[in-house]
Amino acid sequence: MGEFELIRRLFFREGPPGAAVLLGNGDDAALLRPAAGQALAVSSDMLVQGRHFLPDVDPYDLGHKALAVNLSDLAAMGARPCAFTLALALPRVEEAWLQRLADGMLALAEAHGCPLVGGDTTAGPLTLSVTVLGEVPPAQALRRAAAQVGDEVWVSGAVGLARLGLAVLRGEVTLPGKEAAAACAQLLRPQPRVALGLALRGVAHAAADVSDGLLADLGHVLAASGVAAELDVPALLEGPAVPACVRALPLATALSFILAGGDDYELVFTAPAAQRDAVLLAARRSATPVTRIGRIVAGPPATHPLADGLPRVRLCDAAGRPYALPDGVQLAGFDHFATM
Amino acid sequence: MGEFELIRRLFFREGPPGAAVLLGNGDDAALLRPAAGQALAVSSDMLVQGRHFLPDVDPYDLGHKALAVNLSDLAAMGARPCAFTLALALPRVEEAWLQRLADGMLALAEAHGCPLVGGDTTAGPLTLSVTVLGEVPPAQALRRAAAQVGDEVWVSGAVGLARLGLAVLRGEVTLPGKEAAAACAQLLRPQPRVALGLALRGVAHAAADVSDGLLADLGHVLAASGVAAELDVPALLEGPAVPACVRALPLATALSFILAGGDDYELVFTAPAAQRDAVLLAARRSATPVTRIGRIVAGPPATHPLADGLPRVRLCDAAGRPYALPDGVQLAGFDHFATM
Repeated sequence: MGEFELIRRLFFREGPPGAAVLLGNGDDAALLRPAAGQALAVSSDMLVQGRHFLPDVDPYDLGHKALAVNLSDLAAMGARPCAFTLALALPRVEEAWLQRLADGMLALAEAHGCPLVGGDTTAGPLTLSVTVLGEVPPAQALRRAAAQVGDEVWVSGAVGLARLGLAVLRGEVTLPGKEAAAACAQLLRPQPRVALGLALRGVAHAAADVSDGLLADLGHVLAASGVAAELDVPALLEGPAVPACVRALPLATALSFILAGGDDYELVFTAPAAQRDAVLLAARRSATPVTRIGRIVAGPPATHPLADGLPRVRLCDAAGRPYALPDGVQLAGFDHFATM
Repeated sequence: MGEFELIRRLFFREGPPGAAVLLGNGDDAALLRPAAGQALAVSSDMLVQGRHFLPDVDPYDLGHKALAVNLSDLAAMGARPCAFTLALALPRVEEAWLQRLADGMLALAEAHGCPLVGGDTTAGPLTLSVTVLGEVPPAQALRRAAAQVGDEVWVSGAVGLARLGLAVLRGEVTLPGKEAAAACAQLLRPQPRVALGLALRGVAHAAADVSDGLLADLGHVLAASGVAAELDVPALLEGPAVPACVRALPLATALSFILAGGDDYELVFTAPAAQRDAVLLAARRSATPVTRIGRIVAGPPATHPLADGLPRVRLCDAAGRPYALPDGVQLAGFDHFATM
């Protein structure tokens, strides 16, 4: 069995073909048919060794994360995953390593009904490039440009935890075993918030996933929408979005991790105040915690969401006055993924 | 202006949004809507420095080729290009180099009405991973598995020319300037046969593009279809599919380049004998030369098209007897792209 045939067998397994898949791997292209009335959402992300992961990464985690960061983009559109392609450059073919890579990737794919339908393998420096495709009724897509003045700002799950996981892996912070494991899991095996994204269709206005950091990714929504936001820092700091192990850090470190840590793959989204109950219902239905952290206010006109240098987020205290950040807060952002 | 903003401006230019594009770059995902009755064809190919191109490649050619090899996959499905994504790892950001890369890629994209709708950039060893999306009515897609006994085998354009271009670049062969330029152009700026693929809808049964070599890619069609083929070597050698500069090579070299050279990005396809006139009309309409080179005969049952070790091609002389290859013919295949 040649190396290519080995890779094909490890990655293309028997399983349900996927509802939208007319033709899977083995032809010049796969064929997908979105259901009537649905648009196809498309997103590509690339992971490169040394930049997004270290050579000693567990390949199971790597496979999981390469797909998870793409599924997270679909979640942020309110799209249901349909299928994905994988372009893989490998320095060498080691069966046990590749088996774990495939196991991690395909376990997540199966959990989301999102089969691998094609791709490419080549010799080269270890690089994984995933393109994911999902379905969403176009009028219900959670677009970055759809935030409106009067919306409230929400975030799912836990923020700052992945950055704490990185600090643990780097030996900068020591935590009890259970907390260290939770922080590292958020970094290494993020759970894309697909169920929440689907539940927020027709409820939320705008959404983005938190890959670069809460302020940066919220900033993308604000720039695309031509608005600004007030973030209630005490509500954020003391609310359920901040895990106890992050809250226990020195305040400047905690705020750095929460506001700019990145890599959490949570959703930051906006919804009209009148939809507050509907948001909470969507959160319950998708078994995903959400925290209300601020509100949308008038702001500068819209620009390209990734090319916006304008300050659009005002940090506030509980009384709505400017919140003074303590010395030492780092808001430069994680910037693992500069997504076009 | 930051490096990321520079890349965004070079690659995302003003232009028609594309008929199927509801939402382009700048959100978590692009949104595409295929026209009623159309399936979406999806293909991904990755180009890695040192394997698919050399460090001194003209970035214009590199940009062209990274998209062209993907468009060629759509052509081989009979699909019309809609949009593409680009994941790009770059060792450094050099504006002049990137400008030419974008120019080469976007000129081809514009010629095919196929806008860039998203992607990813990161620091890393130079790698380009393109995913292309196209439309095709599913019943008219040119699938590898659709070849039938009684079909005739055709190939478009010129075969062996890209491999000759490689020999010229390596200094193994010396040619007059015009012929050398044509050979290098086929290698460096292949023209995907999109118009021919569209014209062959409803005419051809099965198709693949010639990336790995004529025998290898025809073999993928045969394996998927559970058939075999007889190739008429004299008709191939003396017909218009073989350029004069390839025919002028020593016979063993010429046959190696023609049968196994790869990288030509022509289409090899099958069509019923009764459709011979329709094939020729499709060729005229798409301004693409085609050559009839053989016929489909009964063969072993179908296997996965990329995991087939069975001999399925019989080389014949003009009288239908076995054609004896001269000593020194290399049929191992180019294997630049092992596409899953």
